[in-house]
Amino acid sequence: MKLYSNRYAPSPRRVRMFAAEKGLSLDIVEVDIRANETQGHDFLAVNPRGEVPVLELDDGSLLTESLAICRHLECLYPEPNLWGITQLEQAEINSMVDRLMFRLYIPVAQAFRHGHSFWAGRVEQVPAYAQVATQSAIKELHSLDSMLDGRPYLCAERFTAADIVGFTTTDFAKAIGLRPEPHQVNLRRWLDIISARPSATA
Amino acid sequence: MKLYSNRYAPSPRRVRMFAAEKGLSLDIVEVDIRANETQGHDFLAVNPRGEVPVLELDDGSLLTESLAICRHLECLYPEPNLWGITQLEQAEINSMVDRLMFRLYIPVAQAFRHGHSFWAGRVEQVPAYAQVATQSAIKELHSLDSMLDGRPYLCAERFTAADIVGFTTTDFAKAIGLRPEPHQVNLRRWLDIISARPSATA
Repeated sequence: MKLYSNRYAPSPRRVRMFAAEKGLSLDIVEVDIRANETQGHDFLAVNPRGEVPVLELDDGSLLTESLAICRHLECLYPEPNLWGITQLEQAEINSMVDRLMFRLYIPVAQAFRHGHSFWAGRVEQVPAYAQVATQSAIKELHSLDSMLDGRPYLCAERFTAADIVGFTTTDFAKAIGLRPEPHQVNLRRWLDIISARPSATA
Repeated sequence: MKLYSNRYAPSPRRVRMFAAEKGLSLDIVEVDIRANETQGHDFLAVNPRGEVPVLELDDGSLLTESLAICRHLECLYPEPNLWGITQLEQAEINSMVDRLMFRLYIPVAQAFRHGHSFWAGRVEQVPAYAQVATQSAIKELHSLDSMLDGRPYLCAERFTAADIVGFTTTDFAKAIGLRPEPHQVNLRRWLDIISARPSATA
């Protein structure tokens, strides 16, 4: 399977880390966002929305949206399980993944989009909103730190898709100047545990 | 099962519509957001984040995040299928649901949050961002109209979870002044089809 990806962007990284945990070796096609390759004729033929990641399946069909890609990989390659074995475990992981996407990833991505020089001139930026979004992300990181008190992983008492979403997003938050604070010992310990996994560099 | 809900908010409506399609009768607990009941002592004991929907399962455990709740209902009550039978169909629906959530729901919800008087004084509003978000939502509605050309439903050639997410969001977009334009005949036809389902008033 072929993955259209970008090495710096958090959404394709989510897929690469997920695939690495499954022991999959994807054929990676690097698409340079900075050089506007995502908006080029060749790539728009792959994804008219001009966004990565895109998974090309062995039958040639194309799948977009990083979480949909990860869920599909979970279906195709059930082991090791990353998205829950029992129905209740699946519900717990789904809830945590959504929480992370909507309460942490969206604010971080929006703060980056509206406040970072990378997007200046590419999109209409509203710097005041970048500040509001950054505050939301800070609040959510505090909440994660509390939640991780006495828990090695975000949910289900083991490494799951939620840790992948949480880790790649928290790591990307560096781009908006957010790093775990010295007193956030639970968050820091969790980040250390996840970043030690080989998949963290995929 | 008990659902903490609010009759005007799009996220609990998503769950109510999904449950109605399954023929489920949930015990609805109305939580008044306008009267700040979501921030009150009683409700914070249910959900410390102060948000609806929350599903209380028969064993008393609580599940948050509307899509995680819908996915859990799909597990518990597989018929009628709303989230895909084959793996490829599941992938297609997951991709469409994520696209709708991130490209339409988030902009509409943010435009409402940052531009509507309902939230004035409750959150820090950035009206300039409400305008940018509204433009994103308009662009996505145009895209949906094109996509629905010759297709009765958003994906999988039948009514699915994607139509529920798309319909409840498009309907909520009225709150930011967005309605399908007269020339968007595909979007209008699709909205007519979905709004005629009994679940649309759940």
